[in-house]
Amino acid sequence: MHINSKKIKIGILGYGNLGKGLALAVKQSPDMELIGIFTRRDPRQIAADYPVYSTDNILDFQEKIEVLVLCGGSLQDLPEQIIEMAPYFHTVDSFDTHAKIPEYFANVEAINNKHKTLSLISTGWDPGLFSLMRVLGKAVLPEGDSFTFWGKGLSQGHSDALRKVRGVKNGVQYTIPKPSALEAVRNGNKVIFDASDMHDRICYVVAENGADKAEIERNIKSMPHYFQPYTTTVYFISEEELEADHQAMPHGGTVIRTGKSALGEQQRLEFSLALESNPNFTASVLLAYARAIGKMGREGLHGTKTIFDIPIGYLSIHSPEILRKEYL
Amino acid sequence: MHINSKKIKIGILGYGNLGKGLALAVKQSPDMELIGIFTRRDPRQIAADYPVYSTDNILDFQEKIEVLVLCGGSLQDLPEQIIEMAPYFHTVDSFDTHAKIPEYFANVEAINNKHKTLSLISTGWDPGLFSLMRVLGKAVLPEGDSFTFWGKGLSQGHSDALRKVRGVKNGVQYTIPKPSALEAVRNGNKVIFDASDMHDRICYVVAENGADKAEIERNIKSMPHYFQPYTTTVYFISEEELEADHQAMPHGGTVIRTGKSALGEQQRLEFSLALESNPNFTASVLLAYARAIGKMGREGLHGTKTIFDIPIGYLSIHSPEILRKEYL
Repeated sequence: MHINSKKIKIGILGYGNLGKGLALAVKQSPDMELIGIFTRRDPRQIAADYPVYSTDNILDFQEKIEVLVLCGGSLQDLPEQIIEMAPYFHTVDSFDTHAKIPEYFANVEAINNKHKTLSLISTGWDPGLFSLMRVLGKAVLPEGDSFTFWGKGLSQGHSDALRKVRGVKNGVQYTIPKPSALEAVRNGNKVIFDASDMHDRICYVVAENGADKAEIERNIKSMPHYFQPYTTTVYFISEEELEADHQAMPHGGTVIRTGKSALGEQQRLEFSLALESNPNFTASVLLAYARAIGKMGREGLHGTKTIFDIPIGYLSIHSPEILRKEYL
Repeated sequence: MHINSKKIKIGILGYGNLGKGLALAVKQSPDMELIGIFTRRDPRQIAADYPVYSTDNILDFQEKIEVLVLCGGSLQDLPEQIIEMAPYFHTVDSFDTHAKIPEYFANVEAINNKHKTLSLISTGWDPGLFSLMRVLGKAVLPEGDSFTFWGKGLSQGHSDALRKVRGVKNGVQYTIPKPSALEAVRNGNKVIFDASDMHDRICYVVAENGADKAEIERNIKSMPHYFQPYTTTVYFISEEELEADHQAMPHGGTVIRTGKSALGEQQRLEFSLALESNPNFTASVLLAYARAIGKMGREGLHGTKTIFDIPIGYLSIHSPEILRKEYL
């Protein structure tokens, strides 16, 4: 990669919610330039403010793109895309299958080492900023407890699950932290929480014509793992209400570390996000980390990174001098 | 520095509130060892759980200490200590005179470059973790506003100021964020705040015998910069009440970044601390960053760093493998 102009040149692979969010985020980042969006679909059928190309032609852009942001899903897309792209591009992705991260890291590391490329895996807000705060919290308050609350937010996985219930035509699910659990944690009460002690679930369901609503509700509430251990509320609404009131993708959450000094004084650290658009925020985080990878690439670094390895200064549009003068 | 044993070996220079907090924090960090506390006072008169030495002998410890944590004040101690110590030791300090940070950095950098040592300056929580969150917030939400609220907490500077008022025998001052300002910011109201729109000040004052309390109150409230622009409340209490209820040093605060996506969706990031002991938390942050400097020193790095340059993973007692597996 031999790029000397000043703006960091970005490519986007995949143009779903996340890819669209990336393209939007570039508009807010005057130091970054979007070279192209790459898609497996027919590029002519995609309306975007930036050039759209077929993934088949992506290797033509090896000298033009400094960081390729992989915007596919974790289940199938990313494990394939990273293998195909990391030999040729510095990459950033949001791989979020927690249990498979060590294996994914090892696969990417082998490629990065062989091809002297740079990849940042598994960034976003969880995994991502929340992971960072869990590590920070434990480092500065070593004796204590950590808690992660999610929501209020739309859970894609739980919405998918409830839409598979017989008689359900459509629906969404919101995860909501229990206020009593948040308060107990903030007060430093040493309590062991299951996820179901910390969160409630609220479902808005459109039933098929003639479906048995009582049965739908029973089947949702008894679904193991997803709903059974939780306090779950089911509301039946019309398709029109769903369309009008539940198209946004809000999310957020709170990471709390409660600790004690060696003298027993209570100390608390808390980080929270309140997002009207989950995918657009995730995209914005990915773009900030793409800036970091762009800077590190220009320094000639290669290897496999996670959010734990990236100094926060690299995320900023500002120089270290400005950061020290104005932000410290 | 040729140290191969596994624990990171720390020295503490200065044994006031911060130095004492450091020694306490080491007890919570099984991967770190406190080699000695160095003082300008007579070491025999200091009661500590660790060896105490005269600062005059500190150079005897050059091979035994991996990171020296400078625990003096910013006004006089640190600018001298860093010049004396950075040629011989990797250092961490909490220099917090914001306006002088660029000059301080330049002075330290010249020494680090000449002597191939490593120094992290100006860490703690503000400057420190709050600075980090201001940079992070702006990087991931580039279009928006940033706010820092301090408190509820004891302000050392304002307490010192009120104790200089004629007729005041003793006293303390607490800074308290205005709930209405916090709420306005969280709701994304685009408001320009002065510090005095964001905080109130509450003073607990012990008056000298026979002093004119009305005059004391007037003189406090009219003190420029410190109190005049703020809503300030003055309570007169007895020396016994001050002793019983106002010896702790609580503090904390909140950094808020409110931003909008390119589609106008509201996004909010918030980081807060609630601390029963300000100095013990600051010490705990300094020790976590001393761990980072210890690790970086073992990697052979040298140079001058701020909190913006240190990957969060370096703060952790855990290996990168464990962090990826359990914290991402």
